[in-house]
Amino acid sequence: MLFHARMDVRIPHDLPAEERADIVAREKAYAQQLQREGKWPHLWRVVGEYANVSILDVESNEELHDLLSGLPLFPYMDITVTPLATHPSDIALEQADPGGAAS
Amino acid sequence: MLFHARMDVRIPHDLPAEERADIVAREKAYAQQLQREGKWPHLWRVVGEYANVSILDVESNEELHDLLSGLPLFPYMDITVTPLATHPSDIALEQADPGGAAS
Amino acid sequence: MLFHARMDVRIPHDLPAEERADIVAREKAYAQQLQREGKWPHLWRVVGEYANVSILDVESNEELHDLLSGLPLFPYMDITVTPLATHPSDIALEQADPGGAAS
Amino acid sequence: MLFHARMDVRIPHDLPAEERADIVAREKAYAQQLQREGKWPHLWRVVGEYANVSILDVESNEELHDLLSGLPLFPYMDITVTPLATHPSDIALEQADPGGAAS
Amino acid sequence: MLFHARMDVRIPHDLPAEERADIVAREKAYAQQLQREGKWPHLWRVVGEYANVSILDVESNEELHDLLSGLPLFPYMDITVTPLATHPSDIALEQADPGGAAS
Amino acid sequence: MLFHARMDVRIPHDLPAEERADIVAREKAYAQQLQREGKWPHLWRVVGEYANVSILDVESNEELHDLLSGLPLFPYMDITVTPLATHPSDIALEQADPGGAAS
Amino acid sequence: MLFHARMDVRIPHDLPAEERADIVAREKAYAQQLQREGKWPHLWRVVGEYANVSILDVESNEELHDLLSGLPLFPYMDITVTPLATHPSDIALEQADPGGAAS
Amino acid sequence: MLFHARMDVRIPHDLPAEERADIVAREKAYAQQLQREGKWPHLWRVVGEYANVSILDVESNEELHDLLSGLPLFPYMDITVTPLATHPSDIALEQADPGGAAS
Amino acid sequence: MLFHARMDVRIPHDLPAEERADIVAREKAYAQQLQREGKWPHLWRVVGEYANVSILDVESNEELHDLLSGLPLFPYMDITVTPLATHPSDIALEQADPGGAAS
Amino acid sequence: MLFHARMDVRIPHDLPAEERADIVAREKAYAQQLQREGKWPHLWRVVGEYANVSILDVESNEELHDLLSGLPLFPYMDITVTPLATHPSDIALEQADPGGAAS
Repeated sequence: MLFHARMDVRIPHDLPAEERADIVAREKAYAQQLQREGKWPHLWRVVGEYANVSILDVESNEELHDLLSGLPLFPYMDITVTPLATHPSDIALEQADPGGAAS
Repeated sequence: MLFHARMDVRIPHDLPAEERADIVAREKAYAQQLQREGKWPHLWRVVGEYANVSILDVESNEELHDLLSGLPLFPYMDITVTPLATHPSDIALEQADPGGAAS
Repeated sequence: MLFHARMDVRIPHDLPAEERADIVAREKAYAQQLQREGKWPHLWRVVGEYANVSILDVESNEELHDLLSGLPLFPYMDITVTPLATHPSDIALEQADPGGAAS
Repeated sequence: MLFHARMDVRIPHDLPAEERADIVAREKAYAQQLQREGKWPHLWRVVGEYANVSILDVESNEELHDLLSGLPLFPYMDITVTPLATHPSDIALEQADPGGAAS
Repeated sequence: MLFHARMDVRIPHDLPAEERADIVAREKAYAQQLQREGKWPHLWRVVGEYANVSILDVESNEELHDLLSGLPLFPYMDITVTPLATHPSDIALEQADPGGAAS
Repeated sequence: MLFHARMDVRIPHDLPAEERADIVAREKAYAQQLQREGKWPHLWRVVGEYANVSILDVESNEELHDLLSGLPLFPYMDITVTPLATHPSDIALEQADPGGAAS
Repeated sequence: MLFHARMDVRIPHDLPAEERADIVAREKAYAQQLQREGKWPHLWRVVGEYANVSILDVESNEELHDLLSGLPLFPYMDITVTPLATHPSDIALEQADPGGAAS
Repeated sequence: MLFHARMDVRIPHDLPAEERADIVAREKAYAQQLQREGKWPHLWRVVGEYANVSILDVESNEELHDLLSGLPLFPYMDITVTPLATHPSDIALEQADPGGAAS
Repeated sequence: MLFHARMDVRIPHDLPAEERADIVAREKAYAQQLQREGKWPHLWRVVGEYANVSILDVESNEELHDLLSGLPLFPYMDITVTPLATHPSDIALEQADPGGAAS
Repeated sequence: MLFHARMDVRIPHDLPAEERADIVAREKAYAQQLQREGKWPHLWRVVGEYANVSILDVESNEELHDLLSGLPLFPYMDITVTPLATHPSDIALEQADPGGAAS
């Protein structure tokens, strides 16, 4: 089950440099582990911003919240989640259902 | 080169049903041709809305505008385009550059 | 799996009265069937507005989109979906996990 | 009488950890007491955010404000209250009034 | 129990003049009846806009929604309802409770 | 001459407790004096928020600004002022002018 | 007593040309009469928009609403009114009160 | 050449009182000098807010930016600039061009 | 003197095709004449939208409003104008003033 | 390939003056180097704001993000990027394609 998430990072400028570096390093390790497990199939940087656009693949809303609230940067991010469904024009649907509404 | 696009469809309710059906059918054929050509690698429905989230893969801004303005539904959609870049935590980067900033 | 939806109804004032009455009647029957099936456990009117706040209980994002896009009023509503998870202060969790963060 | 409330928690990052932990613990106890008293029938976490969606059941606006302003996290939350009414398509109304407008 | 409501009137310009005049006349009669019954203690025009600010005094959310959705102009208004409570600095509270927080 | 004002209080969390208590106490005294003088005929708490909705009755814009900028909490409030006029459906107008447009 | 008003004109494109021309001509005559009476001391066009910024000088809120709602274009304008007061740095105040807070 | 500017002052509450007083005093002197030079023909206080509405009269965009960025309060203000032009209904135009479009 | 303008085109879908084609053809001729005169040095399409970003070079606000309000598409566009000044980091300033503040 | 960027600078007022001066000096040197390389063909100051409007000319989204995230002021700016394409009314297109849609 796919979800779209946009995450905007806003680390306070007076956070000690060491604390910041530690959080960012743990964030990277955590994000890469989830990619390897197939939970986080897409992760892109938004050009010109300290933000990302992500696609998450989870079993449930509960699992998604656990995953996101476990991010080391969670306290410093604004996250917006959008549930996704299969689009009727997706060519992966073609064999099963060659008709349907577009866009 | 990847771009994120959100497209919200707003077809006027007084558009003749035949004209509407024709536009929607041509939209689907056009969208599927672009998927087959690899220009439109991801296309998802936003749950509960007549809208989609798309990832487009093009050579240039010019090509992207030609592609989007050629959509049969283009006159009836609000489209927002966001340029994407590789995220430093993307595991595809691991072999080349095993360090870098997260999120 | 629970989702929160707010639905704002905007029926064009020039829709023929008969067509409008037919849509509204089918909407009611459809909404009541889903309540009886347990898919739509809560449905409230927003005071002073032609809008509702709903809680839907479905197996997946796909099922939720099918359910919502099947609403007879779907073409005339702005719907915003928010995925929900169990709150750590929910007393239903008390026996299993008597600790955890509030709010 | 039912009210919908969305509460977004924004604890300043420089609040001492001990003070924060104390507030969060008292918040949980307070929220659970109100659930047991039937004043707070529903409490859900918004997926991906430090926020909740709640349904409160009170006798009056005065009681609701007392309840909300008594939350230990009240100084650190943005709360939006929406009054709710029975929806005409609610199946609980079926026996009394089998007609009425939908959605 | 007091509620604040702001009502913005947006009558479509192509509504037949006779239908419009009829609605506006019925709106006035209805609003005045509610004032006489004490349900609508304050009604002010917003300067420069076809809008009003109102204070309603009702027994419940249900009564308020019935009152507002019964307005002849209801289909042509955007209404925003805000529940009100007694302010701790209100001098009407002085005898009972001469202390409390301001603003 | 009546004005509507909404005041949202945002006291910085690191303001010393003593300073805060002093400001809030002076605010209350000031607000009550203005109520007794008839300048501030209505003052309500917005349910669930540290905010109020007020009706002020003054001779001029100058007097209103002096009154509001004199509030001890003025530096910590976002205030929005809306000028009000008599509504044509106000029953107080009935004897003088029994006609006029509604809402 | 001065008020700032911004007026954005939005005439429906399907209003008959003759009706439109008549309204615009009456608007001009009305605006010029008010300028001659000293009620409308400043009237500027916003560059690139069918909109104006105005300063009105009236005795009361009632007079201002009568003036604005009497504009022939009133049904086709979005008007936002802002009450103004003398600024403490205004040099017209210098002789009377040579001190005071800036900006 | 006229420009409209709205300036909202947001001085951080932890700015030392002496520094604040010095900035505000210099702001006043600077604003009054520009008024005397005819560059700042109108300066009004927005009722209920620490903000002003101004009309500036300058030779060019460059001069306007130099003037505004030279304000001692510039680092603590949100400024929005709107270019103005003569309105076709301005009575000052009457002798030269007695026709033209209104509003 | 440079101005930035963003123009969003919103032609009503029920405008007769012939009228629309005529307006669009006249718009193109007009835009190209202004480019040849050096008044409109830059004109770009916003990718994915029926909108442009433009840089205009004019003598005054008056000239700019005349230019923009003369656009055949003016009644069907939302235009936002932003005045521009030389940036202190512009390398064209280097010889005259090799210092100054950045960004 | 051209991109439009608006950059709003928001340096915290409690950043040490020396650190601030160093960042601003490095920003200027960096911006000028990119101008000399032809990557940043246009850079304008927004009148009345600590902000700029820029046109960047790069090979790809990746290059643009590297360029922008390398700005010394990047942590203190809100940047919004908009991809641009050739406008069909651009006179540079005239010889190749003398037709096409306007605006």
